[in-house]
Amino acid sequence: MDDEKLPSESRGKPIRCRAAVSRKPGEPLVIEEIMVAPPMPHEVRIRIICTSLCQTDLSFWKMKDFPAIFPRILGHEAIGVVESVGEDVNEVTEGDTVIPTFKSECGECADCKSTRSNLCAKFPRPSIFMPRYGTSRFTDLSGEVLYHFLSVSSFTEYTVVDKAHITKIDPAIPPSSACLLSCGVSTGVGAAWRTAKVEKGSTVAIFGLGSIGLAVAEGARLCGAARIIGVDVNRDKFEIGKKFGLTDFVDPANCENNSVSEQVIKEMTGGGADYCFECVGLITLMQEAYACCRKGWGKTVVLGMDGPGSQVTLPSLDIIFGKTLTGSLFGGLKPKSDIAVLINRYKDKELQLDEFVTHEIRFEEINKAFDLLIEGKCLRCVIYMTNE
Amino acid sequence: MDDEKLPSESRGKPIRCRAAVSRKPGEPLVIEEIMVAPPMPHEVRIRIICTSLCQTDLSFWKMKDFPAIFPRILGHEAIGVVESVGEDVNEVTEGDTVIPTFKSECGECADCKSTRSNLCAKFPRPSIFMPRYGTSRFTDLSGEVLYHFLSVSSFTEYTVVDKAHITKIDPAIPPSSACLLSCGVSTGVGAAWRTAKVEKGSTVAIFGLGSIGLAVAEGARLCGAARIIGVDVNRDKFEIGKKFGLTDFVDPANCENNSVSEQVIKEMTGGGADYCFECVGLITLMQEAYACCRKGWGKTVVLGMDGPGSQVTLPSLDIIFGKTLTGSLFGGLKPKSDIAVLINRYKDKELQLDEFVTHEIRFEEINKAFDLLIEGKCLRCVIYMTNE
Repeated sequence: MDDEKLPSESRGKPIRCRAAVSRKPGEPLVIEEIMVAPPMPHEVRIRIICTSLCQTDLSFWKMKDFPAIFPRILGHEAIGVVESVGEDVNEVTEGDTVIPTFKSECGECADCKSTRSNLCAKFPRPSIFMPRYGTSRFTDLSGEVLYHFLSVSSFTEYTVVDKAHITKIDPAIPPSSACLLSCGVSTGVGAAWRTAKVEKGSTVAIFGLGSIGLAVAEGARLCGAARIIGVDVNRDKFEIGKKFGLTDFVDPANCENNSVSEQVIKEMTGGGADYCFECVGLITLMQEAYACCRKGWGKTVVLGMDGPGSQVTLPSLDIIFGKTLTGSLFGGLKPKSDIAVLINRYKDKELQLDEFVTHEIRFEEINKAFDLLIEGKCLRCVIYMTNE
Repeated sequence: MDDEKLPSESRGKPIRCRAAVSRKPGEPLVIEEIMVAPPMPHEVRIRIICTSLCQTDLSFWKMKDFPAIFPRILGHEAIGVVESVGEDVNEVTEGDTVIPTFKSECGECADCKSTRSNLCAKFPRPSIFMPRYGTSRFTDLSGEVLYHFLSVSSFTEYTVVDKAHITKIDPAIPPSSACLLSCGVSTGVGAAWRTAKVEKGSTVAIFGLGSIGLAVAEGARLCGAARIIGVDVNRDKFEIGKKFGLTDFVDPANCENNSVSEQVIKEMTGGGADYCFECVGLITLMQEAYACCRKGWGKTVVLGMDGPGSQVTLPSLDIIFGKTLTGSLFGGLKPKSDIAVLINRYKDKELQLDEFVTHEIRFEEINKAFDLLIEGKCLRCVIYMTNE
């Protein structure tokens, strides 16, 4: 692998490379050659080192109707090296190691300038196109446009990402671990650290023990939570979760009347957890999490996203008795500054990242990653773009 | 008025005095003589100096079914002087000026010991009886029990209140103004100051401009809010509200499609207010307030209470885009420490209290206070128990 040579050869030209294209809902991705156009002003073309599969990829892959769209290049959790940059890109240069993120950070809008928000008013939602131009940088060899995904599209050897969606990182840490900071682990750890601001000695209940939920546990552990209760229908998750700080486990299917809140968590915590996190994206679970948090100061943080138009219903008395409901995207983190903080905590051996990587496969095997996630057999499956 | 003499004469004996008894829902109170038993251990008997009428009195006075109960002595916003104390009462003594509050503060439970909550786990809800004994201290002259109200019952010359519901105050400030800190003004000012923690330069929208809503404005003004938008169907409230810091007014009936959120507030504030306060107790208005707060960091605080079992419905996308919903009783204030802070700010001529007193009447005229509040003609009507 010789990064030094790439720029001079490909800069300004389309790159022909391999991508795993999602052509029809729920059907295996097809590895084919595609053309990746050069970056326009403010854009960065990246050679992906490795990428991993997240539940959101799975959701959009299975989805038949809007907001799903095909053919598309999925993938949004990745790490790569800058191949070339368009005009007006100053913060990264060819050869830099970068993490693309679905969360933009333009640095100029009211949200980006505030310490209270991690939204970005300039690019408020991830796009199926490049955000500044409304066009794709991907075509297949017949010339058909391939859509972008969450402003990232990492299931390809090369992708183009707006500079607002790029964070330059220290290349010293293993790419398979750094990659996870691109979405899942940042979202979970950030939700405990930045959104909830979990206090030392507090009690935490986490609903849904996928990678995001376990990353919340990891964040709560780092914040010094005294008790971290995991709620999941898969009991295996308790053993896995212990390394991320889980102290207790509740299987809702084994609770009388199936009511986690009344039967178990309130008893375990003496009235409700200080912090509850919903990590699945189910309205009913958001309501259950809210019911399980303590009056007076209990805070429920929603990380999961249910379908468009879905609504949460809460008892008004709980509100006036001091319960708080909030939520965040990307754990409330500002990618360009907070990912670096997490990387430092990883280097200091405080934050665990490697432990989330349960599988590593080659790009050609990408559909296996989908199977593993569907079967609940993996936390993160890292997909390497080359065999080197 | 000779406070010095009272204790020695009445201590330990029942007191016969006048009270305004609510005997049937919605019917004028009847001023009659009643018997007020001496305080039991942990209780304090108080001679009321003055009391004022709050919407909650009105609600329970009109209410026909549970949780309403009759005959009852309403009133919960007041100031008085300690006539005598039961055993195990150390923090006040005969002759002290005190404010009774519906919010208890036992000082011993997990909530009272935490700086994050103003709830009290020992006496979580106001009672129709004395909280430690489940009995009333009031009987009429036929011996019938009269129920307490919100653990205060101030529409009587003498009342008995648990020490957890008593705050000793500096007697130097006018009783008509201090009285308002017993409920309404504390609730509104506290909601801005303690619950929302309104930041300097921020935008605030207040839904419902009764005394509580205007006290929120006053609190937001003290916190340095740059823009305070009042929302009310009564346009007169804008003029009244200006003295409490209101800078803008929205009449929802004059908005196209009657939608305050979409049509007006988001335009006025460039995307939504930093803080929204619901001060009426209507589910629809809570939802409207939530819709009007800003994504990223907008916080909606619910102060009003709708009927038992009522539920608030929120779009789940708003939650994940960083909006926060919370609420509080008594503005999140701890009575025994925070009322003193407000009194000091009043003495420093920062906090306005006198401006809330629009009417002052004699005890015999108490039903007039109900008429004034129903007609929307007063903020606070102070009712003096004696004519001295």
